[in-house]
Amino acid sequence: MGRGRSERVLVHRIDEDGSPRRQPDDLIVEEPLEIRLDGHLVATTMRTPGDDFELAVGLCFTDGLLAGAPVLRCRYCTDERSGADAEFNVVTVETGGRAPVPQPRLTATTSSCGLCGSTSIDDLRKRLRPLTDVDPLPLEVLTSAPDRVRSGQTLFDRTGGVHAAAAFDRSGEPFVVREDIGRHNAVDKVVGRLLLDGKVPADDLGLWVSGRASFEIVQKAWAAGFPALVAVSAPSSLAVEAARVAGMTLAGFARSGRLNVYAPTDL
Amino acid sequence: MGRGRSERVLVHRIDEDGSPRRQPDDLIVEEPLEIRLDGHLVATTMRTPGDDFELAVGLCFTDGLLAGAPVLRCRYCTDERSGADAEFNVVTVETGGRAPVPQPRLTATTSSCGLCGSTSIDDLRKRLRPLTDVDPLPLEVLTSAPDRVRSGQTLFDRTGGVHAAAAFDRSGEPFVVREDIGRHNAVDKVVGRLLLDGKVPADDLGLWVSGRASFEIVQKAWAAGFPALVAVSAPSSLAVEAARVAGMTLAGFARSGRLNVYAPTDL
Repeated sequence: MGRGRSERVLVHRIDEDGSPRRQPDDLIVEEPLEIRLDGHLVATTMRTPGDDFELAVGLCFTDGLLAGAPVLRCRYCTDERSGADAEFNVVTVETGGRAPVPQPRLTATTSSCGLCGSTSIDDLRKRLRPLTDVDPLPLEVLTSAPDRVRSGQTLFDRTGGVHAAAAFDRSGEPFVVREDIGRHNAVDKVVGRLLLDGKVPADDLGLWVSGRASFEIVQKAWAAGFPALVAVSAPSSLAVEAARVAGMTLAGFARSGRLNVYAPTDL
Repeated sequence: MGRGRSERVLVHRIDEDGSPRRQPDDLIVEEPLEIRLDGHLVATTMRTPGDDFELAVGLCFTDGLLAGAPVLRCRYCTDERSGADAEFNVVTVETGGRAPVPQPRLTATTSSCGLCGSTSIDDLRKRLRPLTDVDPLPLEVLTSAPDRVRSGQTLFDRTGGVHAAAAFDRSGEPFVVREDIGRHNAVDKVVGRLLLDGKVPADDLGLWVSGRASFEIVQKAWAAGFPALVAVSAPSSLAVEAARVAGMTLAGFARSGRLNVYAPTDL
């Protein structure tokens, strides 16, 4: 990768007595990444460098852009016009043209006002299979996983400014942990790794996220087939609704051996 | 507004002894909002309902889409085909065609690899004036503001799952506080309110955010002319770089009367 994932700077630390002193501080690195699918632009996202291929593959997959096409290769787009800084900021995912040409997410105008959360969930229901035929993960595994992921958050320890996601197995053991300045990116990196390793659908795994569970996080977990999603912080209303429709176990406020189960409604 | 900003559900609370009990829990509401400028689609964002016009105006402004055009009117797009749920999920900002037609952020392909953080900052430098001719806010105001915003975070108290942003004056008094499931949305709502009140550029104000300071948060603060940005959590490398170029004071880890000053480099 072109740049590190953290960067040391000198800051002025102001304490309660108002006196400033100079001290070093490690910042999380944030750089844009352009993601292409067979040469077509898919998205530009601000991310922490590292695991870029996993991020690109994961994003294409969880957004439904691969549509079943196999990933043949990932590569950085380099040409002589790009400087050293830019060299590692464009990734293309190659399926040999087997994935459909991605549609720009924004078109110039839309004609209808029919936009709401339920529609968003219906869209997912149409393209994703329900998780109801998958064995749920035991509750004690969901409560134990968060503390076991903590030791893998090395960038967080250094910078205090980074999200994480992890896949854990039925014993609660985390085996893929990824960190990124973006919550969604961390999840995409985990899913991308699993997909490249042939472990999607992740029927036998749970997904842990360091922050909140929004609709898009549930969408990504559902797309990858995780039967359970465990979030350190709160879920949103739409996330809970989507998890219930998916047949996914959704837990929030998972800290120190405690959690709330938001889906399913009956334990 | 069509729906509330929080929603009560019954959850299973699992405590350390493993025993579940049913209890009510308030979720933060998340719904899509489609934003249009003179009828042209600009963005679809997941947001917490409420202050939708401010969000739409703020987003158009901080993204540079208004290009100096005045906002004449905001309205919900309603037609007979949209159901009650969808009625309040499309907002159009009207400038009577004086704003340029917004370009879709993603076009089908790009030809160059020249994408990097420095380029992103250069783009801002071209369209935004430096803040160096603005009086900086005193450090003691920056350290005191966070605790004074806390009482305005009513949705956070209820749901634990929502970000906030606030504009505060030279005495540290917060006078616009907005909450949203999205960090960027909370900032856009504050900026939108200020813009509609004729208070942009916000030369005399500071901006406080409840989370981290990423590049895009600095971009929004710079666009609105805030001479200071105070974040509860960490800034990113690119956020610090952008703030230094802008001539903005950037403080992070601002809690309990302490903070780190990342920009400017000399106090």
